[in-house]
This record gives sequence, structure tokens and C-alpha cells, in this order.
Amino acid sequence: MELEFLGTGAGVPAKHRNVSSLALKLLAERNAIWLFDCGEGTQMQILRTTIRPRKIEKIFISHLHGDHIFGLPGLLSSRSFQGGEEPIELYGPAGLESYVRTSLQVSKTRLAYPLHFIELSEGVIFKDKQFTVECMRLDHGIDSYGFRVTEANHEGMLQVEKLAELGIPAGPVYGKIKQGQTVTLSDGRVIDGKEFVGSSKKGRIVTIFGDTRFTDRSSQFAKDSDVIIHESTFNKNEAKLAHAYFHSTTQQAAMIAKKAQAKKLMLTHISARYLAKQAKELEEEAQEIFPNTQIAKDFDSIDIPFS
Amino acid sequence: MELEFLGTGAGVPAKHRNVSSLALKLLAERNAIWLFDCGEGTQMQILRTTIRPRKIEKIFISHLHGDHIFGLPGLLSSRSFQGGEEPIELYGPAGLESYVRTSLQVSKTRLAYPLHFIELSEGVIFKDKQFTVECMRLDHGIDSYGFRVTEANHEGMLQVEKLAELGIPAGPVYGKIKQGQTVTLSDGRVIDGKEFVGSSKKGRIVTIFGDTRFTDRSSQFAKDSDVIIHESTFNKNEAKLAHAYFHSTTQQAAMIAKKAQAKKLMLTHISARYLAKQAKELEEEAQEIFPNTQIAKDFDSIDIPFS
Repeated sequence: MELEFLGTGAGVPAKHRNVSSLALKLLAERNAIWLFDCGEGTQMQILRTTIRPRKIEKIFISHLHGDHIFGLPGLLSSRSFQGGEEPIELYGPAGLESYVRTSLQVSKTRLAYPLHFIELSEGVIFKDKQFTVECMRLDHGIDSYGFRVTEANHEGMLQVEKLAELGIPAGPVYGKIKQGQTVTLSDGRVIDGKEFVGSSKKGRIVTIFGDTRFTDRSSQFAKDSDVIIHESTFNKNEAKLAHAYFHSTTQQAAMIAKKAQAKKLMLTHISARYLAKQAKELEEEAQEIFPNTQIAKDFDSIDIPFS
Repeated sequence: MELEFLGTGAGVPAKHRNVSSLALKLLAERNAIWLFDCGEGTQMQILRTTIRPRKIEKIFISHLHGDHIFGLPGLLSSRSFQGGEEPIELYGPAGLESYVRTSLQVSKTRLAYPLHFIELSEGVIFKDKQFTVECMRLDHGIDSYGFRVTEANHEGMLQVEKLAELGIPAGPVYGKIKQGQTVTLSDGRVIDGKEFVGSSKKGRIVTIFGDTRFTDRSSQFAKDSDVIIHESTFNKNEAKLAHAYFHSTTQQAAMIAKKAQAKKLMLTHISARYLAKQAKELEEEAQEIFPNTQIAKDFDSIDIPFS
């Protein structure tokens, strides 16, 4: 489970910050990539990574502003051209489907795979054995959403080699041992299952916010996240501007991470007004409130370890 | 009058060739840029040039395939965000307006300037004192057009300094002299106008083809061009493939330039299959037929001198 930032700029592209896109790499977990937002040029950014478009399984669009969606028709077309055949699920606010379908129809693009559109609303929007994705409505002038991705807990694995060493043959007894039961074997030996099951791991939580003003509910939504990704379009002294333009400041994002008791905060959607040195200052002012904060740069890659 | 190649790839972007876009820089002539096609990422390419988006006056779209239009909504949005207020004229096949308007409407983008759409058809699509743009329908499966841009001839300039040196005061007589007439001054001197008028210059001609199969009419359309820009998606041995996919080979493009008696041929729309060395081979095979051929690379800049 890894995050790779494909675009960390705000509104318009800059030379070293493209417009919004973030990849959640679930290669070990499900051999898949989930994309969050897809600003223009996302497919060009992907060319500079190891990501294979055909592995993109789901695309989540937080809101329909151009800097978050204008890369979608091109990415979908190229994925098809390059041999992608697996369906893609597109999660986004109402209007996304009409935009994508019009773009593909006008350009006479026939995809080699189906698209499934899922319109966002609050609550659980996806759930399978591995992951649950929940949605929260934000405050951005137009419909904008945050996504909380929760991994299911990993059960402890049965230590098969250890059992084999003791000459215990595979069979129904393995099931009982895996459950941690104490079992008596046919040869009279008594086995404590708990000694043969690896430790379980708590599933990881990643919360990715779309563009938004500071909202009180965000910290609850992001509660206990391993990583929070939040926009930070303005510095700590620009709360009024942030409010007027439906965006957040560094310290507002940091307050959410602190209150959520998150482990790490990544700030993104950084205005081109802030050059490298000033971006460092943004980072420092957020760290005053939430020390484990980092300003994301394009192509930053973050591994999310088990806790 | 200068050409700058913003994207020279075919179909999908590659690391060193973005999808199609070409700038005709008319800075000396009218302080304006004309853009031909606008594939995804064109605005990012422009960031690496000296082109100012606000100077883009007209955008010509040869056809509606995604690799020629998906950069349009983002470019238009950013131009507005960056203070562009002058209208833009968009010339393209039917369907362009619906694509652009839907993209802007779904993304809630309000431009600070008006868009004027002009639907392409054969013949003159624009004409003012300086330039005429004519259109020709090509052969590409979907509507695709070529553009012939003809500059008006530059009349010879009246050599005012030379007249002043001879003590001939400005007045109505200057008009006659400029026309090359022989005039008798009030002091009796006889002046041959032709000696006081600089040489006139023939207007330049640039012909830019959209994606197309080889067509017989193209050479007539591009007759006497200073520069022809033509696609070259396939090598000389792939004429069957080129035909099947509605594209051209290197040598088909070269034959057009030869028959048109053009001065220079720039080949573009180069498939990512051809790496640098192979692109050189493409160039050489075209040169067998039309020696002054060059394979365009992204950011190549070509000055178009008067002949």
C-alpha cells in the first residue's frame, strides 16, 4: 500500500507541479491501482512512473473542477490503446458521466473495456473483503467529497511450515489450529493453535480529501487514519482568502489531522505562488500544529506501513 | 513568422513526444499566436516555451480525435485564470463546440473572455488584410482538414529618409512617389518614384495538414508553400497500414511537398514506435523524394523567411 503523487498543484499547472492526481498503489494487496482525481496531463505524469494504466481499477473523482478531471478522457483512451481490457469503475459527482461520455463520443473514441459510473453520496460507496471506501461531502461551492479507504484487518496466517516440521499433516485440523483452538492429535499430542498463528495486523486507513474549506466533520471522518491527504491552498495567515475561495490553510489541515489522531498528514493542492522555499515554510507552519506533516511534491511516493 | 512544435507524437503521448499541437507565431506580424490542434498537455508544453496563452488569438482544430483536442478545455481555462481577456476564435469540425461547452459547463468554468466557434468547410474560412486561411477536406475516416495560411504581399516601403536627404518635404507628392510614378517637383526636379520605394516582398505560405491518408488534391492545395507540415505516421514500407488506418507514410508526404514545389517539409505525428535513430531513418527516406525534409521534434522552432 503506497501513495504516489502525480500532481500536487492548485488550479493551473506549473512547471514542477501538475494539476491534481494521486495514485493509491495496491499492488501487493490486489495488483491494482486506484486513482484519486485526474487533472490534465495525468497520463503524461504516469509515463514517468512505473504505473501501468491497465492496472488502474478504480478512479475516484472528488469534484468536477477542470484541474481534477480534464485528464480523464485522454487517460481512458490511452489505456484502451495500450491494451487495457479490464473494466474501470469511475466514482464521481453527478455530471462526471456526461462529461466523459461526451468527450469520448465527440472524439469517436471506442474503449476496449466498459466504464461503470457510480455517483457519489455520503456513506459507503464501495466494499469488498479487502477494502471499504466511505464518502463525506465537503464544503467547496460545488459538490466535493472526501474518501476514507479502510483496509480490512489481516488475520494471522497459519504457520504451515512449523506444523510440517512437527509432522502434522494438512487436513481439517489445520482449520481448528488457525482459529487458535487447542486440539488433540490422533497420536495424543496436544497442540495450542495460538502458537501456530502469526500475529494479526490492523488494516490501514487512508483518508483523501477533495478541495474544501475547513469543516468540523473532517476530523471525525478521518479518525485514526494512517495517512490523511488534505489540500492546503493557502498559508496560515490567509484563512479569509481560503474561506472566500472555498479552500483550506496549512494549519486548518493540520488541525484536522491532530484532532483525527492521524499518524501522518500530506498536504497537497499547493499554489504555484509558493516556490520551493516558501513551500518549506508552509510545511513548517503546519508542523507547529501537527508535527508529522509533509508538503507533497509531484512524484513523491509514500509507503504506508502496518502499525 | 515562426513555427513552434508543441507536440509531434501520434495517438498517445510518449515521454519525449507529446500529442499534437503546433503554434504559428505571428508576433512581429500581429502580436498573436495561432494554435493548430491542442492535444492533452499542450498548456504544460507551453509552460516550457516563451508563448503567452493570452496572445493566442485563434485555434484551428483539424479533426476531433482525442489526441488533437483533449488539451483544449484546460488551455482555455488556464488562459482565463492567468488574465486572458481577449476573445478566441475556434475553427473546427462540427462537434467541437459541444465538446468544449460541455467540458466548461460540467467543470463550472467561467471564462473571462468570449469564445467564437467557426465550423470548418472547404474554402476560405478567414481573411483580413494580412492573412487568408483556406481549408481543404482530407481523408481520415472522420472529418479532417488541412489549413493553407497565405500572408498578403508586403508592398515596398517608401524610403522617407532618402527623400528627406534630398530636401523633399512630406506632402501629397509622397503618395505618388510611393506608387512609383515619375513626378516633377515645384523646384523643377524630376523624381522617379521607383528609386524611392523598397522592394516588395511576396507573402509567405504555410500549409498545415491534419491527419490524413495520401490524397491527390493535397499538392495543389499546398502549391508553392514556404513550409508544409504533414503527418507521417508510417514508414515508406507501410503504405498498406497507412491506408488501413487513414494515415500517411513519409514518402507520401514527401511526394506532396515535391509536387507542390514547396520550399520545406516538416513531418510530424510520429509514432512512439520510432525512437530517435529510427526517426532519422524516416527523415532520410522522405529526403530521397524531397530533400528539404525534417522530422519535427517537440519544441523545434522554425523561422519562415521571406523568399
